Amino acid sequence: MADDERLARVTLSLIGEPGDAKLTSLVGRLGATRVLAGLRDQTDPELSADLGQRLAAARPEDELEHAARRGVRFVVPGDEEWPSGLDDLASGPTVDRRGGIPIGLWVRGPHRLNDLANRSVAIVGSRLGTTYGEAIASELGAGVAQAGHCVVSGGAIGIDYAAHRGALAVSGPTLAVLPCGLDQWYPKTHAPLFEKLASDWLVVSETPPGGVAYRTRFLSRNRLIAALTHGTVVVEAASKSGALSTANWAAGLGRPLMGVPGPVTSAVSEGVHEMIRFRNAALVTRSEEVLEMVGEAGQYALDFRRAQEDPRDRLSVDARQVLDAVPVQRAADATSIARVAGLRIPRVEELLEELHQAGFVVNREGRWHLDPG
Amino acid sequence: MADDERLARVTLSLIGEPGDAKLTSLVGRLGATRVLAGLRDQTDPELSADLGQRLAAARPEDELEHAARRGVRFVVPGDEEWPSGLDDLASGPTVDRRGGIPIGLWVRGPHRLNDLANRSVAIVGSRLGTTYGEAIASELGAGVAQAGHCVVSGGAIGIDYAAHRGALAVSGPTLAVLPCGLDQWYPKTHAPLFEKLASDWLVVSETPPGGVAYRTRFLSRNRLIAALTHGTVVVEAASKSGALSTANWAAGLGRPLMGVPGPVTSAVSEGVHEMIRFRNAALVTRSEEVLEMVGEAGQYALDFRRAQEDPRDRLSVDARQVLDAVPVQRAADATSIARVAGLRIPRVEELLEELHQAGFVVNREGRWHLDPG
Repeated sequence: MADDERLARVTLSLIGEPGDAKLTSLVGRLGATRVLAGLRDQTDPELSADLGQRLAAARPEDELEHAARRGVRFVVPGDEEWPSGLDDLASGPTVDRRGGIPIGLWVRGPHRLNDLANRSVAIVGSRLGTTYGEAIASELGAGVAQAGHCVVSGGAIGIDYAAHRGALAVSGPTLAVLPCGLDQWYPKTHAPLFEKLASDWLVVSETPPGGVAYRTRFLSRNRLIAALTHGTVVVEAASKSGALSTANWAAGLGRPLMGVPGPVTSAVSEGVHEMIRFRNAALVTRSEEVLEMVGEAGQYALDFRRAQEDPRDRLSVDARQVLDAVPVQRAADATSIARVAGLRIPRVEELLEELHQAGFVVNREGRWHLDPG
Repeated sequence: MADDERLARVTLSLIGEPGDAKLTSLVGRLGATRVLAGLRDQTDPELSADLGQRLAAARPEDELEHAARRGVRFVVPGDEEWPSGLDDLASGPTVDRRGGIPIGLWVRGPHRLNDLANRSVAIVGSRLGTTYGEAIASELGAGVAQAGHCVVSGGAIGIDYAAHRGALAVSGPTLAVLPCGLDQWYPKTHAPLFEKLASDWLVVSETPPGGVAYRTRFLSRNRLIAALTHGTVVVEAASKSGALSTANWAAGLGRPLMGVPGPVTSAVSEGVHEMIRFRNAALVTRSEEVLEMVGEAGQYALDFRRAQEDPRDRLSVDARQVLDAVPVQRAADATSIARVAGLRIPRVEELLEELHQAGFVVNREGRWHLDPG
């Protein structure tokens, strides 16, 4: 991207609101330079007049330099590290006038954003996560990161924090997308987490340095978490809670949507259960199942099926029939077992011997019991 | 049904095994009288020779009379109280050589079986149910029975017992299908439950009086629970557990299959989660959702949706945009809210007044806060 277009994008990032659907769509069609020119001439009636007024005060070169001193870079479409997933936002949904490809992203950390986003899963949830939910979010974060997939979340208290922490516990990749500037740290109590992510992995925001968290910016931010990743897992979310907004974006972008169930008595599992009931989200219980949804098909399913095998599955139909005809609480002779099994006595005696060898039944004084082990 | 055919069915019930697929299919095609004649002449090579040997000892009239003295009747296809759902078993699945329409059912209690079965739901689950699972099973049982649907279960310890108990707590209909004769009571500790069901509702079995519980008979019994009802709810079930067998029958018969989720850390929720993941069972969390699956479409959904309504949903897009632009933790003036909302200041001032009236925001010294209430 040409330097003047890049600088025009910095300017628009400074004066516009993250994810303003009119602005992102206009920039997508015309380019930032032409949109800026239109604002200066006040020839574009589509955009708020306030934007033009704020334009006079914008100092894009200064802001870029100021950001660079804090290790923050501005990444635009066409850059090597631009993640292709974000381009899906061009035809993605618009929610409350938010949507579209970001004009640019402010990024801090030692990795290329596309490298982490190319193999990534969003793990998000309620700020009011329970001990149960946080434990599962951590386990999922660790499992996903261990397999080399980046855990993307919002850095919020509760489930988000637990997901990041799980990834960090196995020294695996994780990045936070924030609703505020990368010098602001929202929530403040998570400053150590964000510093760690900025030093070892990445923090990302559509809001320029200095910008604070607004509810609209959470919404815009959530669309980035969904678009950057190959699937979104919601661990706990109350019905109609903000934690479901990322899920809605993911569904709107055609990304796999997953939910971790919990007790039906838990208010913060209600939203997840509704996702599974009404939105056809996949129910997931562990990281292998998450990886199966976002990884290569069958890669993880196979191990899972193998682990589930029951020794009874290897028996012939006849042998299983005989085993099932051994009484559940007492002993029986071969004749009565044959009756219940519906097979002839000599064949049943043969099969009981086989079952004995295989450790399913024991013989005491001519009568057969189920092997207690 | 003619008296001799009925008596032939009693005889076959006494000498055969419940749900023996060969026997039920043969009786379905030829009638019990002809099958009996074939056994006497030993002309039918399809059936076990043992059946013919046991025939000599069978005393059908005596057994009928003995049963009647205990209040037990024998119900066959064509009887007024025969439940039509059982006829679906003719083309239903066969599992481990079990399947088909029962030759007859032994029934005890003051209701007609078809009356209870015509509006019914199976609620089943693990014998190792947790406190959580049993509480939910009881609530579901109560809710379903309160709405006039019969709770059908197996009378086992754990989830089954809790489901029956929930229905009884609201004096609602519930019946148990047992894997043993109706004078045997399996498990014995539930004798008071079974006596209560026999005196107020119904107990049902494919096994004649005197017959004890075998594993094969649980399997045959589970197919009846599935076929008698309009849907099956599994509350807790370990992976590959017997509690899933009823679910498999229900799915094979095209009946709605439902599962109650639980913590992913709970072994007895694993089987239910797998049902939802792999078998497309509906996730249900309360009795209204169960009734929606088996009742008239939309009857319960409407109340649910109404209960879920959020006051924010009634706001215009502009008003919601303004509300979302009020900072989450501090106050802001109309100018900065207008900037974040992307709307003109006069319009924003108008909408803030509306939001104030509606109780969403408060104004303190010219600056706007979210209303804490």
